[in-house]
Amino acid sequence: MIRVALAQLNLPPRRARDELKADIVIYPELTLTGYPPEDLLLRPHLYELVNRALAKICQQVVDIDLIIGYPRRDKGKIFNSCSLIRNGKIETTYDKQHLPNYNVFDEKRYFASGDQACVINVKDIPIALSICEDIWVAGTGKQASDAGAEIMFNLNASPYHQDKRDERIDALKSTVAESQMPIVYVNMVGGQDELVFDGGSIVMDANGQQCFHAPDFVEDVYLVELDQHTVRHDYPASPRIMIPEEHIYQALVLGVRDYAQKNHFKGAVLGLSGGIDSALTAAIAADALGGENVEAVLMPSRYTADMSNEDAILEADALKIKHYSIPIAGPFNAFRESLHELIDGTPKDTTEENIQARCRGVILMAFSNKRGTLLLTTGNKSEMSVGYATLYGDMAGGFAPLKDISKLMVYRLCEWRNTLSPVIPQRVIDRPPSAELAPDQKDSDSLPPYEILDPILEAYIERDETPEQIIARGFEQAVVERIVMLVDRNEYKRRQAAPGVRITKRAFGRDRRYPITSGYREF
Amino acid sequence: MIRVALAQLNLPPRRARDELKADIVIYPELTLTGYPPEDLLLRPHLYELVNRALAKICQQVVDIDLIIGYPRRDKGKIFNSCSLIRNGKIETTYDKQHLPNYNVFDEKRYFASGDQACVINVKDIPIALSICEDIWVAGTGKQASDAGAEIMFNLNASPYHQDKRDERIDALKSTVAESQMPIVYVNMVGGQDELVFDGGSIVMDANGQQCFHAPDFVEDVYLVELDQHTVRHDYPASPRIMIPEEHIYQALVLGVRDYAQKNHFKGAVLGLSGGIDSALTAAIAADALGGENVEAVLMPSRYTADMSNEDAILEADALKIKHYSIPIAGPFNAFRESLHELIDGTPKDTTEENIQARCRGVILMAFSNKRGTLLLTTGNKSEMSVGYATLYGDMAGGFAPLKDISKLMVYRLCEWRNTLSPVIPQRVIDRPPSAELAPDQKDSDSLPPYEILDPILEAYIERDETPEQIIARGFEQAVVERIVMLVDRNEYKRRQAAPGVRITKRAFGRDRRYPITSGYREF
Repeated sequence: MIRVALAQLNLPPRRARDELKADIVIYPELTLTGYPPEDLLLRPHLYELVNRALAKICQQVVDIDLIIGYPRRDKGKIFNSCSLIRNGKIETTYDKQHLPNYNVFDEKRYFASGDQACVINVKDIPIALSICEDIWVAGTGKQASDAGAEIMFNLNASPYHQDKRDERIDALKSTVAESQMPIVYVNMVGGQDELVFDGGSIVMDANGQQCFHAPDFVEDVYLVELDQHTVRHDYPASPRIMIPEEHIYQALVLGVRDYAQKNHFKGAVLGLSGGIDSALTAAIAADALGGENVEAVLMPSRYTADMSNEDAILEADALKIKHYSIPIAGPFNAFRESLHELIDGTPKDTTEENIQARCRGVILMAFSNKRGTLLLTTGNKSEMSVGYATLYGDMAGGFAPLKDISKLMVYRLCEWRNTLSPVIPQRVIDRPPSAELAPDQKDSDSLPPYEILDPILEAYIERDETPEQIIARGFEQAVVERIVMLVDRNEYKRRQAAPGVRITKRAFGRDRRYPITSGYREF
Repeated sequence: MIRVALAQLNLPPRRARDELKADIVIYPELTLTGYPPEDLLLRPHLYELVNRALAKICQQVVDIDLIIGYPRRDKGKIFNSCSLIRNGKIETTYDKQHLPNYNVFDEKRYFASGDQACVINVKDIPIALSICEDIWVAGTGKQASDAGAEIMFNLNASPYHQDKRDERIDALKSTVAESQMPIVYVNMVGGQDELVFDGGSIVMDANGQQCFHAPDFVEDVYLVELDQHTVRHDYPASPRIMIPEEHIYQALVLGVRDYAQKNHFKGAVLGLSGGIDSALTAAIAADALGGENVEAVLMPSRYTADMSNEDAILEADALKIKHYSIPIAGPFNAFRESLHELIDGTPKDTTEENIQARCRGVILMAFSNKRGTLLLTTGNKSEMSVGYATLYGDMAGGFAPLKDISKLMVYRLCEWRNTLSPVIPQRVIDRPPSAELAPDQKDSDSLPPYEILDPILEAYIERDETPEQIIARGFEQAVVERIVMLVDRNEYKRRQAAPGVRITKRAFGRDRRYPITSGYREF
């Protein structure tokens, strides 16, 4: 039996060695750079830094084996590699063979493929090394058993999206079925721009049974003992499975926390309108950064209902967030006066509504600039899809927590969050949504109800269905065509949107790359 | 001899057949979708539309052969293909073999590679088909001659950057040397988001002599007669070679015109400050769209020099652009009043400067919203590199003509444009640059002179040099380290910037993909 430490994080191996008495620690894919390093991989100097770090690790780490991932340059090619470091030197190196180049992945832009299995010995047990995508492709398991391995280690930087856990288990089962050997699957934890890595490291035995599942979203080191036939550990038999709302909420909290902290912000600021989106964003921000590090700004106009202000204050108080109230009438009227020649006598359009939203953007950015805090935007995926948002107005900000959360999911997350402690007043959840940019305005004045909008958006954006297919599901033709047109036309807004946490299989980020200039129409 | 029409555009083949009496017309790569279609290639419905278009072409085009490029789906794979359409049907199809996946290209995200040459016969002359990257890779020429071809046709969507022309000629020469056959190289003309395709189609004979070079940036059809040994045409022996300033300026004009027109804008609007960047942007806009379709807004503050306003008006008049003057004092003072609790008694920072810039952003967006025009931002690459720009302020807008133009190149382009007609007052060129956001402010207060800044930026951004290497060129260490730090830190601003025309080999767009969250430091 070998004692394997699964390092669901990037920490020094001291604890694995001294406390857990592990024989070997496995770190995630590209341990030394984080994932994805993107075009930093094209900078020659990166490899000097990586080599310096490897030399330091070789020098300092003794009495324990390490498996570490890093980008490796060799004869003008770059490989996505991992090495066994033992007794102060790099003993064996494996190069990833299968490079994902779809969805959020661009590995063929950078890496060349390895072309062979790599087997190391730990306490005389032969172990095959593999990296992430390798186990998602048929043949890797068989290759490992042909090479004489009895166990497989798999290093991952596997980004979270809904239902990813089930997909991972299926991939592991296929590789186990091919190879007839246990797999130790180690994934990282953390947020990196739009991606969240959710951990959830797994050990599956040679029968395809999941013997160990590390907690999701928790950075820690886990000790498992195993050989070809047996897997042993002292953790609970099965992990607590989070319901979807909790899982998504935790992904959002981790995404916001890591974006703010890794980019050295002193805290966050957001506009609190009394609506449901900003209420949820405030709760996420407070849970991620602590209420004392979040500030909320109420920016009422003549169209803001009294209950909006009341509810915003209730939310801020429940989350222990400091709040300010700065009415926009002054700047808004000053703009109207300056622009009266442009506007007077012209037909009503969204120009004035946008000026209101942009006054709020200026005020919030002043807070962000003056305090050194991160401005969080509060818009959701449904709005981003159809362009129901103002560029440089409510879209102003550095990070967009709800960017990949549909409006219907906003409601579900609020209700789940309130089960922990009631921070969002029920009235905010029950009121019909409104942008409050015009008298008695409701979202439903210009958009279909979210019960109709959201499924249409999901079909068109996440499943690439045609308008014809969507109509065949029972939606009105005119509604479907209008929504599809709005999605297509608003690519330019999304191109200037803040990054946000990816939650679905098709977020508006690295995984949906549409041209702005396009005559493409599906109807 | 066959009469070949090189279609540097996407027009019906009538003229090639009836007027030029061509035997065959060659269209550019991905003729039917434009380039790059990006993730539209993942929509199943795209292929129904492409097939419908192909069927229509087969039905309507008679008495002339066509070579047309399009994405082709076959057994779950997608190919970047071209077909010979003859006598109303698709006679032969070639699949691109070499897929670029670097720089601005992502073809491995979508396409599978073809694996064989394709030879068609026109008037009994065997001709190999190839697509773009194919001729940039050794072996394609030899493969074609092994397959019995005597001429090669090469369809391109080759995006412009400085010096691209020389690179293309080198690639053509290598393939000719391998294959001992003439090549007909057809490139498209037009702008597509950040890319400009500059045409400049070429015929090179079997000796590597450039026998024909179509004009750059001109959409037209060109007739060339050729067989294996001879190339004949009635155009001037050698094309007029543009100097770099003219070539870049024309690329910018085409980029702005196509972005505005293909996205159905009624015209453009921009802020005219009396500075050199907005002067050049105005000239490009007027040359692209006609002065009568461009509006300029002067937005003076207490820091705006009188001569700035005077010069802005002179420029607008010279370009026959309508101008408006809207002082920002009103809205700016209203914000200061609203925000006095936030700002009063705090140390001076950029908060107030940013509010001024954002007041201008709100005013310009009101023009854009009310008139349905495209707001052009006026910032240059030097500023975008170091973050010397205000998000939602001077960065507000739909398109950024100078996004890839360094400040020193801004001066060169202004001087070149003035040789056509004097539209930019000499004083604007001669004055020290200033953002005019604070009393007596000069760019040189916070940035090194552009003669120092620009070469450092070029080395770090375009050539991936390390600070050490740049210092070794003779720049001060402290200056280099500060500039590099500013470039690294301002990725978040660039992520929310408007698209702009790519001019260099490394623009801030599809060709430079850096994470925002990154601890990477080269010093």
